[in-house]
Amino acid sequence: MKVAILGCGFMGGSLAAALRSGSLATSITGYDLDPAVTQRGVELDLLDASAASPAQAVQGADLVVLAAPVGSMPELMADIAGSLGPATIVTDLGSSKAEVVQAARRLLGPAFARFVPAHPIAGGERSGLEAAQPDLFQGRTVLITPESETRADAVERVEQLWRSSGATIVHMEAAQHDRVLASVSHLPHLLAFAVVAHIAGQPDAQAKLSIAGPGFRDFTRIAASSPTLWRDIAMANRDAIGSELRGLIALLQQVDRALTAGDARSIEEMFERASATRRRLGGSQSGQ
Amino acid sequence: MKVAILGCGFMGGSLAAALRSGSLATSITGYDLDPAVTQRGVELDLLDASAASPAQAVQGADLVVLAAPVGSMPELMADIAGSLGPATIVTDLGSSKAEVVQAARRLLGPAFARFVPAHPIAGGERSGLEAAQPDLFQGRTVLITPESETRADAVERVEQLWRSSGATIVHMEAAQHDRVLASVSHLPHLLAFAVVAHIAGQPDAQAKLSIAGPGFRDFTRIAASSPTLWRDIAMANRDAIGSELRGLIALLQQVDRALTAGDARSIEEMFERASATRRRLGGSQSGQ
Repeated sequence: MKVAILGCGFMGGSLAAALRSGSLATSITGYDLDPAVTQRGVELDLLDASAASPAQAVQGADLVVLAAPVGSMPELMADIAGSLGPATIVTDLGSSKAEVVQAARRLLGPAFARFVPAHPIAGGERSGLEAAQPDLFQGRTVLITPESETRADAVERVEQLWRSSGATIVHMEAAQHDRVLASVSHLPHLLAFAVVAHIAGQPDAQAKLSIAGPGFRDFTRIAASSPTLWRDIAMANRDAIGSELRGLIALLQQVDRALTAGDARSIEEMFERASATRRRLGGSQSGQ
Repeated sequence: MKVAILGCGFMGGSLAAALRSGSLATSITGYDLDPAVTQRGVELDLLDASAASPAQAVQGADLVVLAAPVGSMPELMADIAGSLGPATIVTDLGSSKAEVVQAARRLLGPAFARFVPAHPIAGGERSGLEAAQPDLFQGRTVLITPESETRADAVERVEQLWRSSGATIVHMEAAQHDRVLASVSHLPHLLAFAVVAHIAGQPDAQAKLSIAGPGFRDFTRIAASSPTLWRDIAMANRDAIGSELRGLIALLQQVDRALTAGDARSIEEMFERASATRRRLGGSQSGQ
């Protein structure tokens, strides 16, 4: 299977690395806005070829993987639509799905039936091809959100790709995906960014951060993620994130009132509920 | 030096374990609300003796360590005040300082001059004596917040205790300590609890949590901490926490307005500021 990866950052690079250690891909062509990145990918033997344009990258490809930030997906789709073969399958790694699916329906033409929206729950604050990890998807979940038009054989092929990288597949509707991710990924990222920005804006920020303990470092680790990548995700999924955010603000206002009133019981009840739920969820997997 | 530890949970137990591996303490007596805990401490050879009451524990002690949740400190202080020797030094491990200092001034009588308020920045979501770690304080910071009345020789002795456990000492005023901790510890804990409680209250909580990735697990790790311990901390430092919380809510409301308005630029600027600050702070130390 000839694979083209459009966008060779940490995620695209890690998928290339995972494919390299399997036998599914017979060749991997990369395209990146920065040509030095794909040239480096060839040097590192993650890629077989570096393409000069998205259209060139997808020539003759059996499978095209859109691994760019969600904000640049529409442009990429428009660039490749005319160059896809009649059987080429297209998939993506985007962290929000409804907007990506909408763009694909609008821009990919007949190839939309062979577009398989996907989102591997993996990554972290690292970025760049040089940081690529062949085992990034090992034991991870990949959410696949096919539409009614999506061909079953295309879905099957994309699932095969992910299984060969060690991931397990969960199917979900795009809108549900976006609500779930708003809760367990987008909102936490937004909060981690907000807490650090809030402290950074204070006059004694340095004194405060200098004594921050390991709990703070874990809590804010995700705030080291790429600002442009997360800006794109925040904008692409802003309805679901806004809804989660307003719900959380209401809860925080309740907490503020309880603190002011000295209402220890309400505070403890909320902490109890959270602690019991969090313990059931089990340990962190940071470092994996 | 004869040491008495009042409250033999994870923190008190870890201090006992750290003292065991040094030569500073000639004996360690423990007291805990639950007598089975100190009996187990003797079996594990973390303690030399199990005391039946706080007053009994401090008999003949050179150094008394209050290692109970901040909410139970006043009662402990009242219990021991009449039994402290004329040279006995008292210190604590409380996560908030102003209220503890106030209680000590009110309850310890002349011994207040030998009370050294201290807070080791260590711990985590573990609890219980059985989880005690002798190296918990290795490389950590201990904040010491002496008052004008505090005797220099008492401070010196407590610093010696912590240095022997591998920690480094930073002096700070109690009120500043509480503001700093509200920012970098209490607010993050409160948010982690709130995010998990918010999700746990939704009808599709299970589906959401089942696909939470490693970022979510790191972000919410501190929400597995003890609810009663953190209720006490939240109440003891509620002024500083409330002030931080209202500042953060205002920032989150700005973010919500930016999301609704599709104002990607404001979102990106806030993410940029946070990401740059977080990167400077360096990696997580989870697992240590």
